[in-house]
Amino acid sequence: MEAQIPVHDFFLILAVILLSAKIFGEIFAYLKLPTVIGEVFAGLIIGPSFLGIVETNFILKILAEIGIILLLFEVGLETDMYKLKKAGLKAFIVAVAGAFFPFVLGAAVSYYVFNLPIVVSLFIGGALTATSIGITIRALKDIGKHRTGVAQIVLGAAVVDDILGVILLITIYDFVITGEVNIYNLLRILFLIAVFFALAPVLAKFLSKVIYLYDKKFSRSDGFVVTTIISLILIFAYISHFFNAPEILGAFTAGIALSRRFFLPFGIAFQTDPDFLNKIESYLKPISNIFVPIFFVLVGISIDLNVIDLTSSTLWITGFLLLLIAVVGKIIGSFLITKISVLKRIIIGTAMVPRGEVGLIFAELGRTSGILKADIYAVLVFVIIITTLLPPILLRWLFKEED
Amino acid sequence: MEAQIPVHDFFLILAVILLSAKIFGEIFAYLKLPTVIGEVFAGLIIGPSFLGIVETNFILKILAEIGIILLLFEVGLETDMYKLKKAGLKAFIVAVAGAFFPFVLGAAVSYYVFNLPIVVSLFIGGALTATSIGITIRALKDIGKHRTGVAQIVLGAAVVDDILGVILLITIYDFVITGEVNIYNLLRILFLIAVFFALAPVLAKFLSKVIYLYDKKFSRSDGFVVTTIISLILIFAYISHFFNAPEILGAFTAGIALSRRFFLPFGIAFQTDPDFLNKIESYLKPISNIFVPIFFVLVGISIDLNVIDLTSSTLWITGFLLLLIAVVGKIIGSFLITKISVLKRIIIGTAMVPRGEVGLIFAELGRTSGILKADIYAVLVFVIIITTLLPPILLRWLFKEED
Repeated sequence: MEAQIPVHDFFLILAVILLSAKIFGEIFAYLKLPTVIGEVFAGLIIGPSFLGIVETNFILKILAEIGIILLLFEVGLETDMYKLKKAGLKAFIVAVAGAFFPFVLGAAVSYYVFNLPIVVSLFIGGALTATSIGITIRALKDIGKHRTGVAQIVLGAAVVDDILGVILLITIYDFVITGEVNIYNLLRILFLIAVFFALAPVLAKFLSKVIYLYDKKFSRSDGFVVTTIISLILIFAYISHFFNAPEILGAFTAGIALSRRFFLPFGIAFQTDPDFLNKIESYLKPISNIFVPIFFVLVGISIDLNVIDLTSSTLWITGFLLLLIAVVGKIIGSFLITKISVLKRIIIGTAMVPRGEVGLIFAELGRTSGILKADIYAVLVFVIIITTLLPPILLRWLFKEED
Repeated sequence: MEAQIPVHDFFLILAVILLSAKIFGEIFAYLKLPTVIGEVFAGLIIGPSFLGIVETNFILKILAEIGIILLLFEVGLETDMYKLKKAGLKAFIVAVAGAFFPFVLGAAVSYYVFNLPIVVSLFIGGALTATSIGITIRALKDIGKHRTGVAQIVLGAAVVDDILGVILLITIYDFVITGEVNIYNLLRILFLIAVFFALAPVLAKFLSKVIYLYDKKFSRSDGFVVTTIISLILIFAYISHFFNAPEILGAFTAGIALSRRFFLPFGIAFQTDPDFLNKIESYLKPISNIFVPIFFVLVGISIDLNVIDLTSSTLWITGFLLLLIAVVGKIIGSFLITKISVLKRIIIGTAMVPRGEVGLIFAELGRTSGILKADIYAVLVFVIIITTLLPPILLRWLFKEED
């Protein structure tokens, strides 16, 4: 429950978010830094960390969620399924290793080295596990590298990572509440996610075909394509949630189904009419230009730098160790795959490092449920901020090295 | 205060609203009926009147408000200030007469004929007064007549009408609460609105010039124009509210300032670069395609046809008389202006008839405050529905007669 904001006040808040995102985006672009970090920075400035003029509220969260599903849809649209399939096994290894090591190492160090209770240790491991698919993808998109082979491995790994994150969250939650892990429940969830991935692309392809044909032959009113495509994205996010998969994966699936080269199981391939695809992309662009930055500004607003006491030695010692685990844990995976240069391995690993909003949600959950005390919460926020802000900057530089 | 809807449920609700708007919009277009009425109809179907699967909530209201300010901005963009100025006096007469007669006649008939208490009578008069600028403008836009001379008179009158509506609402509210009318307060509000109209266009023009120049010379990031223009619209809606003017007038003012031919007092004229204007229009189109229908669907959702008992004789007798006042009261004004054909007078009058969401808000306020009893509330809803649904249909036919 929360108080309703007067409509005109909300207008002002929205304008402040959009303008600050654009201003810091422009400044960061001028400094040759990633725009997405400019947007997170805008959130830090207008949020509780500095000015404190905007705080998160439910409407902003909804708009931000629309932003992130639009981003995932757009990336899906531009994804080449042949490349993604080729990246499949590699992506899977990177994701599983990148989830396993930070979780196990994070929990183990917390438990054995810092002597924290087991539940707290599991939570710390959990907060260090999931990659923020949003930050990673935006960072790659901002530098125009999201269609490279390396990016496809990262993309595939980020998708798998997101699924692992959901499973981990449910498992830890189960363990904290009941003291044991319900294997049956876990298998049921895995099964549902599998069903979703088997059926959703077929359904999305079918619906997009209906939209395409209707638009071509009958449509009489303005904005038919944009309305139906946005509805398709929203519905697939909903269906995805229904099958226990993360909502953004539904939007990503809808995007892939509409991409240039799409194939179903049994090798049935489809081509999307390039004109139709261009139409969708050009209509969605201004909409995502408005919604997507809201998501990243809100990541910044969700962070309160004031909780971090830079004079605390706990912060530096614990923080440094956890940061090491957070970074190395993600990079190990890329060294387990074959036939790829060291630089590419480092790029893949670095791209998987950002924890962003996923880590923050985990930390916040731990704090509000009383599991994480203020000092540990602050350390986690500190670690998450660094994993979020540094990789996009490093990626720019690494990709330049590669060219 | 209201419960938070889970994000995925909101996605589904939004998809239902967008799709039903499009489906009924298409059906109505096919039947050569106004799309906007199709959208209101979609709201009646999915809202409490029929299926009851969607109810209004705060987030939808915010999105709908964004829709209506975007619509007003777009209409402002396409407004020719020379024509609007030429329509000035005529528009003023139409608006004042169209506010005066329905209010005075509505209140008088309620008080003297139906023997209702004075406060109730004033509320009934109030609910019959204000034209729904949104319905009127969409109806004209749907048939491509929003740039004609007649439409400029309607547009000007709708703007003045909206201001009169605000003043009337404040006055009645004052009277109901304190038992008297505070003339000083009224004058203060009128003064503020005048200040807004004197300063806002200058400020909007200046800011749009800054956006134009920055975009041309410096912009480095995607979506600079769309973000800044949307922010400009939001800020002007906010400023407008700050000066006690309706929020939509702020958006309209921002639109006029960016229109092709704009002039400030003392005859200083500005031309907007046509390329820049096209850019703005093409970027805003998909965004307004998504937001604008939400507003009109929500008008339908806000109506509960179940409150209307069609077997009640009170409904028919009271309803018929109030409907007559609502229609004739708006048409009188157009017969007070000079040098215009009878058909054009009828078109202008008809265009001013829709009461839409403004009437509903008034009726709802009366009901929830206990001033309006269930039967009178039902009569008002009945009258408002007919004034809202019929004029767009009549306008199509009248404009055809005129051609």
